[in-house]
Amino acid sequence: MNILGAAAGFEHGDMIIFFLSLAILIGGARILGELAEKFKQPSILGELLTGIILGPSVLGIFAPGLQSTLFPSSGPVYIGLQFMSSLAIALFLLLAGMEIDLRSVFRQGKKALSVSFGGMLIPFGLGLAVAIGAPHLIGQNEVENKTAFALFFATALSISALPVIARILMDLKLIKSHLGVTVLTAAIVNDLLGWLIFAMVLGMIGASGATHGIAFTLTATVLFAGFMFTVGTKIIEKIYPWIQANLSWPAGTLNFIIVGGLLCAAFTEWVGIHAIFGTFIFGVAVGQCRHIREKTLHTLESFISFIITPIFFATIGLQVNFFTSFDFGVVMMVLAIGTIGKVGGSWVGGKMVGMNNSESLAIGWAMNARGVMEIILGLIAFQAGLISESLFVALVVLALLTSMTSGALVQKILKRRVPINLVSLLRKDHMKMELEHTDKFQVIHELSAIAAKKLGRDDSEISDLIIKREKLDSTGLENGVAIPHCHLPDLKEPRIFLGVSKTGVDFNSYDQSLAKAIFMIITPADDPKCQLEIIAQLATFFNEPDKTQKLINGSTAEELIAYVKSEQAH
Amino acid sequence: MNILGAAAGFEHGDMIIFFLSLAILIGGARILGELAEKFKQPSILGELLTGIILGPSVLGIFAPGLQSTLFPSSGPVYIGLQFMSSLAIALFLLLAGMEIDLRSVFRQGKKALSVSFGGMLIPFGLGLAVAIGAPHLIGQNEVENKTAFALFFATALSISALPVIARILMDLKLIKSHLGVTVLTAAIVNDLLGWLIFAMVLGMIGASGATHGIAFTLTATVLFAGFMFTVGTKIIEKIYPWIQANLSWPAGTLNFIIVGGLLCAAFTEWVGIHAIFGTFIFGVAVGQCRHIREKTLHTLESFISFIITPIFFATIGLQVNFFTSFDFGVVMMVLAIGTIGKVGGSWVGGKMVGMNNSESLAIGWAMNARGVMEIILGLIAFQAGLISESLFVALVVLALLTSMTSGALVQKILKRRVPINLVSLLRKDHMKMELEHTDKFQVIHELSAIAAKKLGRDDSEISDLIIKREKLDSTGLENGVAIPHCHLPDLKEPRIFLGVSKTGVDFNSYDQSLAKAIFMIITPADDPKCQLEIIAQLATFFNEPDKTQKLINGSTAEELIAYVKSEQAH
Repeated sequence: MNILGAAAGFEHGDMIIFFLSLAILIGGARILGELAEKFKQPSILGELLTGIILGPSVLGIFAPGLQSTLFPSSGPVYIGLQFMSSLAIALFLLLAGMEIDLRSVFRQGKKALSVSFGGMLIPFGLGLAVAIGAPHLIGQNEVENKTAFALFFATALSISALPVIARILMDLKLIKSHLGVTVLTAAIVNDLLGWLIFAMVLGMIGASGATHGIAFTLTATVLFAGFMFTVGTKIIEKIYPWIQANLSWPAGTLNFIIVGGLLCAAFTEWVGIHAIFGTFIFGVAVGQCRHIREKTLHTLESFISFIITPIFFATIGLQVNFFTSFDFGVVMMVLAIGTIGKVGGSWVGGKMVGMNNSESLAIGWAMNARGVMEIILGLIAFQAGLISESLFVALVVLALLTSMTSGALVQKILKRRVPINLVSLLRKDHMKMELEHTDKFQVIHELSAIAAKKLGRDDSEISDLIIKREKLDSTGLENGVAIPHCHLPDLKEPRIFLGVSKTGVDFNSYDQSLAKAIFMIITPADDPKCQLEIIAQLATFFNEPDKTQKLINGSTAEELIAYVKSEQAH
Repeated sequence: MNILGAAAGFEHGDMIIFFLSLAILIGGARILGELAEKFKQPSILGELLTGIILGPSVLGIFAPGLQSTLFPSSGPVYIGLQFMSSLAIALFLLLAGMEIDLRSVFRQGKKALSVSFGGMLIPFGLGLAVAIGAPHLIGQNEVENKTAFALFFATALSISALPVIARILMDLKLIKSHLGVTVLTAAIVNDLLGWLIFAMVLGMIGASGATHGIAFTLTATVLFAGFMFTVGTKIIEKIYPWIQANLSWPAGTLNFIIVGGLLCAAFTEWVGIHAIFGTFIFGVAVGQCRHIREKTLHTLESFISFIITPIFFATIGLQVNFFTSFDFGVVMMVLAIGTIGKVGGSWVGGKMVGMNNSESLAIGWAMNARGVMEIILGLIAFQAGLISESLFVALVVLALLTSMTSGALVQKILKRRVPINLVSLLRKDHMKMELEHTDKFQVIHELSAIAAKKLGRDDSEISDLIIKREKLDSTGLENGVAIPHCHLPDLKEPRIFLGVSKTGVDFNSYDQSLAKAIFMIITPADDPKCQLEIIAQLATFFNEPDKTQKLINGSTAEELIAYVKSEQAH
């Protein structure tokens, strides 16, 4: 075997293209993903767009030669990218599995089950009805295996996207609330049931090309999942601490998780369902282990979600022409029954266990987020020849639109303000890295001048308000931080103006430290809560004595922002 | 493109084999790597062995059918593993490049250059002489391109392995000493020059199959490296902080490094030298950037060195039959001229700038470590048809033997004791997770009883010594840690016996905390320094107030060891 691919078997050009294509896919997904986030959209939107632009939909039309050179549809590069992509999605589901907390299902019990069943049964029923009664409405003119198709479509409408939902709840700081736990638990049950039915569908159509019969596939799947969730978790609970104590760290645990996942992937693929079930089930089993350390999780997460997973999402667009396969009628139909079924069903489920109207509705919209799970499901079904290209595109649109809107709708229904993000308030042009003055009031005037300029206000208007507040009670916190602040009328959003003083400014702090980082906080007068929230976040951030020093260590505003960002990330 | 590989183009079985082979390679490399480390050998020895066992040398003889199914030499799985391996080695060299500190070369100047040139010129000259004069002595009966072969062999003898050398110096706590910096700098110069000549060799033989002439390849390589080390580093220094401040963290920086590396890999591959030069040079350039955060490095390092790189080393053994190609004469010849040239040359270099005999000799043996670089070089040359299989095997043996022995020889020459590793002193059977007593002296008796049993001594012998010392001055440290200790005659190596007390024991500490973790330290009476070292390490470890609590949080000895290990890793 010629691993380095320099001479035999393998063309010189293939290696060039492989490295180039991979770089373009990862780099493109990052750039468009970041752009999507700037417009407050999920980054997966940008990642999918990358593939659409690089695939037959755009590049294939304007530069077909270049397109087929970079992303060929056969030959070694094709095979290489295919393996990379399969690995990416398998590892993504390993992580997704690890996020599932089986114990909460038992703890949460009735409420979550009611929401979950409501949120599954109604869209499932609607899906079955349409798929059997009027498949042409959802873009399927010929149906080969009617039962499998109907079951698939019903499942596709009923699943939720655990990761997206978790993210929405986290963003709204609801993840540990009663409502949050109910939604999450319902989504877990949803996920597990949905995947089980989907595995059945795959078994029925012999999608993966395995030669075993459906009876074998189903029995083996159920036995495997059952084994992993009972005996498997127990074995892992025993082995894992031994690995941590006796093998090198973190190599031992990282390898255990990856190798275990790969072995299970090979097993489920052999059984006749997809490799992703193997990694997912192993992920769930290993995720129950109480010995996993934060650092192991972080390493896995960083690498898998930031480098490997985007490869998969970017390659989706390479496979389908999203423009020619976009059928407006089909898309609207899928959107309508998907959303009505899911929101309505979850709402009914919530009401049945005595939740009020707005809570039940919020839960419904949260559960409606389909996210990446829908896309993965759809892609497998499309590749297995079970659904048409236009239905696949409609499912992708359903996934994206529901993921994009869920957060805002839940927020609106529950009337929650989006929590303030410290990093987003730190802007380069709102900072002065070397304050000229060392006297408290002069520093306030110095920062007020910047603020007045940026906000188009009068210098004295701001400084007067800040000084008035400052005279009431000094705003020096512990550890060299000061937070002069005021409410300003007619201001749209909060602002922070940051001044750094290497010598320090006396803000009469109670630990008598000189303030080296002075955060001047200006908030809208009609949003009193906002000020408190920013102050609380700053106080939390600077709870360790050395953080101020580390903050002002960098010489540029960019380094300072990078520091805050990297500290907040973990 | 059918990414999930379920239906068209791609066989169902291929995906099973791919996941399975990958799992076996990674898992096997980890297990044998750990075994190697248990016997104080470098883990790469185990990783190489994995491939030898799974390849034609062992599995191929006992179960040829299984071997060719798992690791085929053509077809999709072959191509997939090939790409994975190329990616692995390219990323490994990205990391290796990032470890190089170009500034130190200029800082260190004369001494390092003298050592480096001595350590290169002499083995280079010896290598040239043998390769031209008597190629059959080094297993090469037919030489196609005489100049290229001689240049390659000379280079192979003259390079050093920066990562191995850095590791040795780190283990001996010499990395920041004058000697350590000289050796490291010399190795960097060595590495850069060696790779440059090797790139020339590849250009000469048109190894990568590129169609450009050698003049183009050489010019492009030199221009590329020159550009990256001057303008390139400046651009990165500007862009990097912007990425850190404006893109999501750590995804932005991780992607920048990986994508940049892949693009350079594609470029150098296109130019006609190997992809690894691209990632290496980009790694060096990005490594000079002062804005890189520790966390970014750790994430890259953990994933690349613990999961991805072993794939490459494990696949080496798949390509060669190490037993049939092992030629004792060739191996001895390569070992002899390699070691004599390198140790002698570096020694001469050291003497020339006024270093004493033992220092110069220590430097020589340190520089003699060839490590993975030698193996990578050899593999590329072998695959390009430049060297015979038996010369490749001899180079692998040279790499392994020099890496395995360098550390011990340097240590012996400089008469340094190997520093104590806290984790290795913590053993399950040396701990009591729930102390019965809460009185200081009773606790000492409780721990002494365990110690006496494990050491085959008398109970009272140990407790008497400990109590005698304890009465002199109490051994309670801050933050709930106590360290009763004594010297014991006729003891071979230091021991720690650890008792955990949830209620706490009063050891009269000066912060008046009750001791919850009681480390009873017993050291050899004839090694007084050893006790101090252990105490210093414990004091450093427990410098934060909450660490003791975290330490005793786990209920088992294994969890406790895992905690110490994971905290020490970063």
